[in-house]
Amino acid sequence: MDKIRIGIFGFGKTGKVVANEFLKNSLFKLEWVVRKCHDDHQKYASRLLGHEFDAGEIFSAEDMSDDFFLERPVDMLVDFSDSTGVYLYKKAAVAGIPIITAISKYEQEELDLLKFFTKHTAVLYSPNMSLGINVVMVAAQILQKIAPHADIEIVEEHFKGKKEVSGTAKRIASVLNLDAEEHINSIRVGAIVGRHEIIFGMPHQTIRLSHESLDRAAFGQGAIFAVKFLIGKPPGMYTMETIIAEMFRQNIPVY
Amino acid sequence: MDKIRIGIFGFGKTGKVVANEFLKNSLFKLEWVVRKCHDDHQKYASRLLGHEFDAGEIFSAEDMSDDFFLERPVDMLVDFSDSTGVYLYKKAAVAGIPIITAISKYEQEELDLLKFFTKHTAVLYSPNMSLGINVVMVAAQILQKIAPHADIEIVEEHFKGKKEVSGTAKRIASVLNLDAEEHINSIRVGAIVGRHEIIFGMPHQTIRLSHESLDRAAFGQGAIFAVKFLIGKPPGMYTMETIIAEMFRQNIPVY
Amino acid sequence: MDKIRIGIFGFGKTGKVVANEFLKNSLFKLEWVVRKCHDDHQKYASRLLGHEFDAGEIFSAEDMSDDFFLERPVDMLVDFSDSTGVYLYKKAAVAGIPIITAISKYEQEELDLLKFFTKHTAVLYSPNMSLGINVVMVAAQILQKIAPHADIEIVEEHFKGKKEVSGTAKRIASVLNLDAEEHINSIRVGAIVGRHEIIFGMPHQTIRLSHESLDRAAFGQGAIFAVKFLIGKPPGMYTMETIIAEMFRQNIPVY
Amino acid sequence: MDKIRIGIFGFGKTGKVVANEFLKNSLFKLEWVVRKCHDDHQKYASRLLGHEFDAGEIFSAEDMSDDFFLERPVDMLVDFSDSTGVYLYKKAAVAGIPIITAISKYEQEELDLLKFFTKHTAVLYSPNMSLGINVVMVAAQILQKIAPHADIEIVEEHFKGKKEVSGTAKRIASVLNLDAEEHINSIRVGAIVGRHEIIFGMPHQTIRLSHESLDRAAFGQGAIFAVKFLIGKPPGMYTMETIIAEMFRQNIPVY
Repeated sequence: MDKIRIGIFGFGKTGKVVANEFLKNSLFKLEWVVRKCHDDHQKYASRLLGHEFDAGEIFSAEDMSDDFFLERPVDMLVDFSDSTGVYLYKKAAVAGIPIITAISKYEQEELDLLKFFTKHTAVLYSPNMSLGINVVMVAAQILQKIAPHADIEIVEEHFKGKKEVSGTAKRIASVLNLDAEEHINSIRVGAIVGRHEIIFGMPHQTIRLSHESLDRAAFGQGAIFAVKFLIGKPPGMYTMETIIAEMFRQNIPVY
Repeated sequence: MDKIRIGIFGFGKTGKVVANEFLKNSLFKLEWVVRKCHDDHQKYASRLLGHEFDAGEIFSAEDMSDDFFLERPVDMLVDFSDSTGVYLYKKAAVAGIPIITAISKYEQEELDLLKFFTKHTAVLYSPNMSLGINVVMVAAQILQKIAPHADIEIVEEHFKGKKEVSGTAKRIASVLNLDAEEHINSIRVGAIVGRHEIIFGMPHQTIRLSHESLDRAAFGQGAIFAVKFLIGKPPGMYTMETIIAEMFRQNIPVY
Repeated sequence: MDKIRIGIFGFGKTGKVVANEFLKNSLFKLEWVVRKCHDDHQKYASRLLGHEFDAGEIFSAEDMSDDFFLERPVDMLVDFSDSTGVYLYKKAAVAGIPIITAISKYEQEELDLLKFFTKHTAVLYSPNMSLGINVVMVAAQILQKIAPHADIEIVEEHFKGKKEVSGTAKRIASVLNLDAEEHINSIRVGAIVGRHEIIFGMPHQTIRLSHESLDRAAFGQGAIFAVKFLIGKPPGMYTMETIIAEMFRQNIPVY
Repeated sequence: MDKIRIGIFGFGKTGKVVANEFLKNSLFKLEWVVRKCHDDHQKYASRLLGHEFDAGEIFSAEDMSDDFFLERPVDMLVDFSDSTGVYLYKKAAVAGIPIITAISKYEQEELDLLKFFTKHTAVLYSPNMSLGINVVMVAAQILQKIAPHADIEIVEEHFKGKKEVSGTAKRIASVLNLDAEEHINSIRVGAIVGRHEIIFGMPHQTIRLSHESLDRAAFGQGAIFAVKFLIGKPPGMYTMETIIAEMFRQNIPVY
């Protein structure tokens, strides 16, 4: 089988780890990486990440001529850059190349652009690509339906330097119809990579669903999962949550 | 609406708490309690549990004449006694009175008897009636399907005096196809009422599903939930797990 | 040996549990209970708590004539009432009867009164009498000294109905010189009796010290511990923290 | 001030991380690293770990001529190799160079050799160098003395591949006089770096002391802490536990 050709936008802390996951997986060929700045220009992401082969040539946003996507064709775009990345791949989207984007926060204009893309291609958008957190999120929504009177609180723990409230925690609050201000408890200490816990309190029992990220490669693994899912899918908007919800449906146990 | 008339088998530690939950709920009328011994004979369970009205007259197993169920009709039987309780209500079962039984361990002979009952009436059998633990169990089964390579371990914590391994933990191991000997870790300390945690370890993330019982009333609440579910159901075998699995199916989130 | 005679102030939710712990312990004789209201006047606390003997006659605050303490002598006073209880036992204090008080919050005037008492008798004042929480608190203070750069956060979990922030959590913040507003995270769900966790985050490791109350009897056990400690002590102010700190000193391991 | 000159034995997974911590800290100069094999012979550890300067020349055990320590003088030896490392630095020990060793398991012969060294120099031996785990261990010993009737269980969680029971957990069991077989619960899932929890169960409360390693640099930090402590100390045997116990003594809170 031919390898799936991948183009990545973004080569920051998370982008690098994601690129590395694609480089390590023999199903994929990392064609190129586009980053905003000129650092490491035309070097190979593979070399920078310690591999002994050439893959993932690095371009800057300014390199993106009209024919960029024609000259360097890929089967899927993966965006771990920032909210402005979306403006760089209009042409690819209209040409039908599927897109996976993990940007944590878009403005309305960018969301509208993504929506426009979905007329032409499959777009999967999820601010948190980790499989586990999406499983926890879907389970929490079902539990809330089964136990509608349970009190629910969200605790998120991250390293001291993380300034804002976790976007994932906000997303959890949103799908559970909880006021984020009131129900998210943010712990900032030391070097915790990321932990989310959803606590359900009932009159005689407590349920806790918790997810802990051990390193950022969880996002790369999620992106790989998403790429595999998106191949061959018709145009439209997809999210990790819809994929996971569908997997729940298909895997309800039968006794 | 007429109250649902309940007959309870068993008046031990858990039986008492379950009886009390039915006494406190205006949907139900606790008609009687059958216990093995002669303690508190023909007293009212309600009085013994601190209520100021008469309900739940206490009989011993020896009181159960041929006409017991005719003279003291109920709409549902709830069994928190022990594995021999099942022999006391053959007549009721054949007459079509639905049965809820929460015995932790039956021998084959008794399981066969329950199966025979299911030709005539609805039988719901679950060794752990608590809603929450069954939600956790179903979620764990789905998660195992979604992440088939995850390593799974079960931790169960109970008070020092609890001798054997938690039956609920064994049930969890069984539905997850895990060797109980190898994958259940039993903690016995102090006065912990009951806590079960299922740990899913993956290469870059860890998921924990945990359930903690704060007191035994969780079982009474579960029994009430089961009674409501079982009313009007056709003959057959039901479990809390099948109910919860069905509720999962009906509550898959749509985005 | 003669039993230690105890007089208790307060017969609310916690007061009752504390009284019961003294009733169950053969070292003690519960002489009387003083409560604000007239409920259960001159009944026996022992009977109300299910014992088959008479102990702990119940008086109201209005019963407290000038000779109350002479006519009903005790060896120790235990106060689980409210901040006004302290005004009821001035005479006893001046007469040298040791006092244990577990009121969560005093005004300055009452603190001054307690201070005055310490000229005449031993006073032990701790808003949280549970042994375990005081152990955790002392360990946290030492850990903070050993790892001065660790980030510290406090999480406290209690039942939904608990309105204010846990006084114990505030006390922990205070001894650790942390801003309570900023560093206490309050979870209010279901029926959790009480859980406090102190998280120490460091660059490569995280330490968590957690204490969970399973029921209010922990406070009674703490009060018993405190009574045993206070017998024969010279006048002065004591706290559970000072006792525990002293026990730390005496039990530093030697290798 | 002159930098403290360090020689390291061992350049495996942990050895590398420890070397890197010394390289990053301006108080120290990493003079050399001795490893068993010939890999990376006479390269610089600094370069291999991504630094842009030369430090920590790599030698193999066979390079260790009689004059090795004279020609390449250091102020302290740090041993993260294996149980045979101890035979390589007899001369240095007799010459009075202080030694820190973090080997998890020695045979009697090697322990005897270490003991012999202590006549000539200060030797600090601890199988787990992380500051946090030693704090937890000392706190647990004190708590056991304060609450002698508490039931105690140890839970240790590590990555799936870790074969044997955690040496640290065994050490905890040993200092608490607990049978390791019976009281250590080992969880092996996914990629957990290392987590130890000590659970104290009492009749009405539960205390949990937990330590989680986020990465191996915790051991390097601990080694740096140990080096600073050991400078100028008289000959003798030291352990992290004795250091931490002494820090407990000096930091008992005063109220």
